[in-house]
Amino acid sequence: MAKIRRIHLKSKKYIPVPGVSPGSIQLYEGSLQPKITAYSYGVSAYHCENLESLDELDQHFKKHPTLTHWIDIRGIGDLGLYDYFEKKFKVHKLVLEDIANIQQRPKIDEYDDYLFAVSRMLYVDAELEIENEQMSFLLFPKVLFSFQENYTDTVEPVIHRLEQGKGNIRISGTSYMLYSLMDIIVDNYFTLIYKLGDELETIEELLYRKPDKTLMYQTQSIKRAMIMIRRAAWPERDKMNDMIRSESKLIHKQTKPFLKDTYDHCMQVIDLVESYKDVTTSLIDMNLSFISNRMNEIMKVLTIISSIFIPLTFIAGVYGMNFAYQDPETGKILKHNMPELYSENGYLYTMGVMLVIAIMQMIYFWRKGWLSNK
Amino acid sequence: MAKIRRIHLKSKKYIPVPGVSPGSIQLYEGSLQPKITAYSYGVSAYHCENLESLDELDQHFKKHPTLTHWIDIRGIGDLGLYDYFEKKFKVHKLVLEDIANIQQRPKIDEYDDYLFAVSRMLYVDAELEIENEQMSFLLFPKVLFSFQENYTDTVEPVIHRLEQGKGNIRISGTSYMLYSLMDIIVDNYFTLIYKLGDELETIEELLYRKPDKTLMYQTQSIKRAMIMIRRAAWPERDKMNDMIRSESKLIHKQTKPFLKDTYDHCMQVIDLVESYKDVTTSLIDMNLSFISNRMNEIMKVLTIISSIFIPLTFIAGVYGMNFAYQDPETGKILKHNMPELYSENGYLYTMGVMLVIAIMQMIYFWRKGWLSNK
Amino acid sequence: MAKIRRIHLKSKKYIPVPGVSPGSIQLYEGSLQPKITAYSYGVSAYHCENLESLDELDQHFKKHPTLTHWIDIRGIGDLGLYDYFEKKFKVHKLVLEDIANIQQRPKIDEYDDYLFAVSRMLYVDAELEIENEQMSFLLFPKVLFSFQENYTDTVEPVIHRLEQGKGNIRISGTSYMLYSLMDIIVDNYFTLIYKLGDELETIEELLYRKPDKTLMYQTQSIKRAMIMIRRAAWPERDKMNDMIRSESKLIHKQTKPFLKDTYDHCMQVIDLVESYKDVTTSLIDMNLSFISNRMNEIMKVLTIISSIFIPLTFIAGVYGMNFAYQDPETGKILKHNMPELYSENGYLYTMGVMLVIAIMQMIYFWRKGWLSNK
Amino acid sequence: MAKIRRIHLKSKKYIPVPGVSPGSIQLYEGSLQPKITAYSYGVSAYHCENLESLDELDQHFKKHPTLTHWIDIRGIGDLGLYDYFEKKFKVHKLVLEDIANIQQRPKIDEYDDYLFAVSRMLYVDAELEIENEQMSFLLFPKVLFSFQENYTDTVEPVIHRLEQGKGNIRISGTSYMLYSLMDIIVDNYFTLIYKLGDELETIEELLYRKPDKTLMYQTQSIKRAMIMIRRAAWPERDKMNDMIRSESKLIHKQTKPFLKDTYDHCMQVIDLVESYKDVTTSLIDMNLSFISNRMNEIMKVLTIISSIFIPLTFIAGVYGMNFAYQDPETGKILKHNMPELYSENGYLYTMGVMLVIAIMQMIYFWRKGWLSNK
Amino acid sequence: MAKIRRIHLKSKKYIPVPGVSPGSIQLYEGSLQPKITAYSYGVSAYHCENLESLDELDQHFKKHPTLTHWIDIRGIGDLGLYDYFEKKFKVHKLVLEDIANIQQRPKIDEYDDYLFAVSRMLYVDAELEIENEQMSFLLFPKVLFSFQENYTDTVEPVIHRLEQGKGNIRISGTSYMLYSLMDIIVDNYFTLIYKLGDELETIEELLYRKPDKTLMYQTQSIKRAMIMIRRAAWPERDKMNDMIRSESKLIHKQTKPFLKDTYDHCMQVIDLVESYKDVTTSLIDMNLSFISNRMNEIMKVLTIISSIFIPLTFIAGVYGMNFAYQDPETGKILKHNMPELYSENGYLYTMGVMLVIAIMQMIYFWRKGWLSNK
Repeated sequence: MAKIRRIHLKSKKYIPVPGVSPGSIQLYEGSLQPKITAYSYGVSAYHCENLESLDELDQHFKKHPTLTHWIDIRGIGDLGLYDYFEKKFKVHKLVLEDIANIQQRPKIDEYDDYLFAVSRMLYVDAELEIENEQMSFLLFPKVLFSFQENYTDTVEPVIHRLEQGKGNIRISGTSYMLYSLMDIIVDNYFTLIYKLGDELETIEELLYRKPDKTLMYQTQSIKRAMIMIRRAAWPERDKMNDMIRSESKLIHKQTKPFLKDTYDHCMQVIDLVESYKDVTTSLIDMNLSFISNRMNEIMKVLTIISSIFIPLTFIAGVYGMNFAYQDPETGKILKHNMPELYSENGYLYTMGVMLVIAIMQMIYFWRKGWLSNK
Repeated sequence: MAKIRRIHLKSKKYIPVPGVSPGSIQLYEGSLQPKITAYSYGVSAYHCENLESLDELDQHFKKHPTLTHWIDIRGIGDLGLYDYFEKKFKVHKLVLEDIANIQQRPKIDEYDDYLFAVSRMLYVDAELEIENEQMSFLLFPKVLFSFQENYTDTVEPVIHRLEQGKGNIRISGTSYMLYSLMDIIVDNYFTLIYKLGDELETIEELLYRKPDKTLMYQTQSIKRAMIMIRRAAWPERDKMNDMIRSESKLIHKQTKPFLKDTYDHCMQVIDLVESYKDVTTSLIDMNLSFISNRMNEIMKVLTIISSIFIPLTFIAGVYGMNFAYQDPETGKILKHNMPELYSENGYLYTMGVMLVIAIMQMIYFWRKGWLSNK
Repeated sequence: MAKIRRIHLKSKKYIPVPGVSPGSIQLYEGSLQPKITAYSYGVSAYHCENLESLDELDQHFKKHPTLTHWIDIRGIGDLGLYDYFEKKFKVHKLVLEDIANIQQRPKIDEYDDYLFAVSRMLYVDAELEIENEQMSFLLFPKVLFSFQENYTDTVEPVIHRLEQGKGNIRISGTSYMLYSLMDIIVDNYFTLIYKLGDELETIEELLYRKPDKTLMYQTQSIKRAMIMIRRAAWPERDKMNDMIRSESKLIHKQTKPFLKDTYDHCMQVIDLVESYKDVTTSLIDMNLSFISNRMNEIMKVLTIISSIFIPLTFIAGVYGMNFAYQDPETGKILKHNMPELYSENGYLYTMGVMLVIAIMQMIYFWRKGWLSNK
Repeated sequence: MAKIRRIHLKSKKYIPVPGVSPGSIQLYEGSLQPKITAYSYGVSAYHCENLESLDELDQHFKKHPTLTHWIDIRGIGDLGLYDYFEKKFKVHKLVLEDIANIQQRPKIDEYDDYLFAVSRMLYVDAELEIENEQMSFLLFPKVLFSFQENYTDTVEPVIHRLEQGKGNIRISGTSYMLYSLMDIIVDNYFTLIYKLGDELETIEELLYRKPDKTLMYQTQSIKRAMIMIRRAAWPERDKMNDMIRSESKLIHKQTKPFLKDTYDHCMQVIDLVESYKDVTTSLIDMNLSFISNRMNEIMKVLTIISSIFIPLTFIAGVYGMNFAYQDPETGKILKHNMPELYSENGYLYTMGVMLVIAIMQMIYFWRKGWLSNK
Repeated sequence: MAKIRRIHLKSKKYIPVPGVSPGSIQLYEGSLQPKITAYSYGVSAYHCENLESLDELDQHFKKHPTLTHWIDIRGIGDLGLYDYFEKKFKVHKLVLEDIANIQQRPKIDEYDDYLFAVSRMLYVDAELEIENEQMSFLLFPKVLFSFQENYTDTVEPVIHRLEQGKGNIRISGTSYMLYSLMDIIVDNYFTLIYKLGDELETIEELLYRKPDKTLMYQTQSIKRAMIMIRRAAWPERDKMNDMIRSESKLIHKQTKPFLKDTYDHCMQVIDLVESYKDVTTSLIDMNLSFISNRMNEIMKVLTIISSIFIPLTFIAGVYGMNFAYQDPETGKILKHNMPELYSENGYLYTMGVMLVIAIMQMIYFWRKGWLSNK
């Protein structure tokens, strides 16, 4: 029998402290120290280097002046990080706050020198918790910075492609790299949806056999997960649209058909989510009606057995009564008050009457359709 | 009695592997080898030829230089296919990926030299599974390529009309052929909807007689099928609208009133689907209330019988008690503790009291309306 | 007591055969032979003539060259009809197909020489079936053709007004005649809605007294009828709007305020339908809660009676037991195992205990509020 | 204890007779004879006069040539009224029909010489019926006509202000007077909503104590009343918007900020209605779950008592059986078939076993949590 | 065990008296006397002064002619306040009415010399009541007035920042101060949502263990609170949008990115509210199905015990009957009517039969799955 695994939505709350100066950085609890990897590439060149700190970056840029850079930062729990970007790259305070505030909706904000984008990474981790991680991007003409909450290797395949020089990835500048990362994030939505969809199918199968509190609970969890995915996919779609229509020079023209493709994927994600949401709704409806059906079944058994035997027991009770008209003095029975008891075939007749009553009731129940197993 | 057949939504999943290079072709599991048929036609000419491979196409075009061509490709499970179109026709990689990724929503994408369109074919196959098949089109000025997932003969009537030269089909260029194929796909939606609608009517009839777990399950299946059709029809409608408003020269002006007609059909499909969805919702509601009604009926039987006989049985029990004030030594009865037992008509009186109680209860239940059969 | 009549939605299905040449006419099953009446009128002239066939039309036009004509065609089941319009009036094939395909949504299509419009007539016929009939119009500068599915006399009052020359009807050209016909169709929506609304009120009244499977079924039918009316009224409204904004010379300027009036009526229809739909929803909700309430009542009766008498019966059963410590040899009773049985007032005490138990239970139930009749 | 009063939606149906000439006046059943009051005012002048008939109007205007006039007409059940306006003021037939047809939605129609506006007055009358009355306005440069269905004094405060010359009312022309009347109508919506809201609070309080069929019915009535208010407020809002954006000279520029204020009030009405509608929905949900909870309680009592005593009664029944192996001739007992009956402590042991069974069941139910009162 | 606290929505009703002159001030019941604090600041200057009355304001402005002023007014229950602003600052009557009418939706109104804005402050007070307080703003080039209903210290952190000169707050004029106040109000929405969200989690946990009337009631309260927050956040979002797009010189260009940030926060609030609303809906659904599940459990216990013991009791009853064919004269038993009673092993056989019946029933119930604890 298929086993149902418990799906759980991980929730990390970044609760903004009301009234702090806007643009002031507030690290969320449990944020990680940054790990920085610099990927520098050109048509035929590819370098990958782990940096100890952002201060090595200057030197790194100087080393590869003609190459395109993608600086992959995982872990955002260091105030120095934000300082660096404010001073070196003149990034607006509010943008830095948004990188630290991990509750952003997917969006793209255009600034004079750079673009700021947010995506939401959704995936199931080993403990079956659904992670909802924020990935932010700063897009400069020659450098792309990506900021990831955790150390997870979700974007590994992009790095692999970059390493191997497959496809357009090394040729088409930073905006194509930005697209590649966003695209893999959306592709991961499909993986998650299908995983949840498989669970739903198992639940449906089990439910049809036997309604169950746990199945109901699990269905509700999946429904919520679906709603969460939709909540990420809608603004993701809008973001893609904004990028396609953007007139910023930072987004190269040849990247746009690819963004359109990701836009279509977002639409497909939303469609799938809606389908599965409808499935959960119908499962919940079916569960309710199955429970009611079961109750009917239980009640029918009770009613049939009680209705047949309670009247019979009454009859038996009657003939267990001790009525006898006795002489109060001698105790001698003057008259048989219940002559049936003392007739020759009283017992047989009584049993016969009982049988007739039982059979009539059975016929009644059978005609009501209560004896069939459904 | 009408029999309910089990409707099933076939689901083929094309799960995009996250991170593969965009535009790289990924064949779905169970995809079929292409079968190619070339139809070449003019006002008075008509040739139909099965091609072994796409390489024969060049030769074929040369043979009929003045004719219009429709190349009907069924089965898309061959990487060579995609290669051919990329090299010979300079089709964009993402378009080819969309042909292979069979989860596209209906859409029309305009490129400089060609149009790319997707339709979704929905039909019930022999095993009562609802197929949701993708049909893609590449529209060039003189050639139309169509890519179908399976070998099904859904578009047969169009071929028949082409063969017989009926209507405008041979005169009006490739965009009219594209319209003809799309139109037959939308017409098939009606066939499917009415088939499902007939099932619904049977279910409603059965349900009114007796609520049933299987009927409920079946209703939910049909509801989901309706939602699936709507999900295909909405973007289909948008696609039609895009084609009507398109300024591409590939879509001839005289085709547009026909596209408007298909647009209207899409609207009718959506209307019908909404109607039937409402029917399913009301069936589910009715099922729930019917189950509750049945429960009421069952409980009434139990309550009436128990309420009447349980008190009577109690009385019988009382007079089955062995109370007697005896002399502990001799066992002689000193006093009749329960004088009713030894009175002359105790039994008759008791039976009379029981009858009165039973009749009073019957009157009570009759006034409550519990004795009527409804 | 008000009686509930069964409302039924008549459904005629025109199932398009997939793949027939677009514009080819397909008569629906049960379509009727056309009956043609020609009304010719001017400010002071009025002629009404039944025509045998459309071929007499030419002659008719010649007879009244200065008058305005309305050709009222009822019954559309004759292929010759469509031929005639294609050849004589150069009407587009798709328009003719739309006249024959009786599932059109209300719409207005503008062509160079004429306008094509569709309305949906909704009314209850004698057998309480709701008819959903299509009426199509071809508007030429001096002639209006109307195509009605059945022979029903729904537009009779317009003919009457025309005959009597009341109002603007004879003065204001063909577009005013088109408006008059459309307006009466929308007015009939009100009649239908109020008829259904009256049924709803009766149902509500009955429901409050006693929940019932048939009432539920009837409510659902009315809900569906309401949805059907809304489905006709929305595109009707859009059609009115299109006509008001149309720049076609075929729609005279002075007709437009009247069209605006019909537009307002459509809005009122939609409002009314929404109101009544809300009523059906609340009836369904109330029905469910009434059923549950009844169940509660039934269960309370069962519980009270069972709870009181089952323990008492147990006590009676105890004192019906035959325990007695006898000498195995002589059968002489050595000891009264159940001394209560043989005590002087055992019976009275037992009855007293039973009474106390019963009274305590009554108090318990009374405090729970289960003894009140609600 | 708070008492629940029965709220009732009064429904007057103006059923348009299909096919009457558009613009022909049809008086609704029970319409009242007009009572006419003429208010004439200037910055420092104020006259109020009851007119016998509209024919006195000409004379009245002549008497106060420089003043602004508001002619307050209550009761619209006189065909002469409509005649007068058609002839004297050249008001369009359709406008007059709209005044008589009391089912109009709030709207503003601009004509060359005048504006026609409709508002809907909603209020609870003395018998707790919610009235939905139509008030129509004809706005001319120097005269405002208002047409009210009934004789109710809803606009009294405006007359009072006019009399006392408070605020801008005497200075700012007819459009400000129109605004004042519309504003008071919208203000009355609040009064009605809060009255209904107070009922809801009482219901909620009662419901929490005890679910009840009448409460449910009342909640549904209030829900419908809320929907009716929303149905008036939405087009009222649109009307306000149309008036603000109107370029008609009849609406003075300085009136517009006031109209904006009424627009905001409409939005607040809609907000409040939505809030209360949500409350009704949650009350209905809670009622259902409360009923189910009660059922659970009832069933628990039944189950506990039955489960404990039915097995015990069985045991008692067993020892009430008369088994004894007797010599068929002499009736002498050869063997005690049920030796327990004749053992020394059989009775005690049996009672002990019964007690143990009862206690075990109590423990079972206690651990299930069925003994707690919730 | 987590304890559920009762959440309550405080409702203060400002019921507009219909018909009062528009712009006339009506103080709500319980409104407070104003407390006025004047904050005057520049890049390096900061003064904070409590004013006795608004009359001291003139003098205050003169004292700090070059500084920017924020006049923080808490408590709006003084008619003199409104007089002052009408006379000194020529504020429109309707604006002043809106300040007093504490039911405004968030909005921004532009006037020639000033802007008028409304925000809604939502927070939980000490007694766990959710306060919904109105804060209004009048923005002049050098002075910002804020009007708060109560004396609550919600904006304290802004004052703190102003005092300490942190961030841009002292540099960026009145529109930045307006933004700061609005921003802290929106930030407080998050605090409230998370507080409610924590309650929801506790409820969910408790609910899974045991459905409960109080939990249901609490869930409904939280749902309503969520709806109330959404009702504040939507127009708040629109207000932000209006301010961003406003061309008024009163809103400085450099404030706009900050307003965009608050706009994003509003969107996040709406998203969160939707998520939690879905959670409440699923809790209500789950509660209903849990109650039904419990009922099933209870009924199963009743059915199993009744079904097993009722037939057995019947058998025991049969053998408790006193049938015996006696000589009416002597009372001598002529024939054993119930020979089983007098056979050698009758008792054993009967007990055996009972056991078999019980075991068969147990098997039946076990196969139905009713014996498992779920």
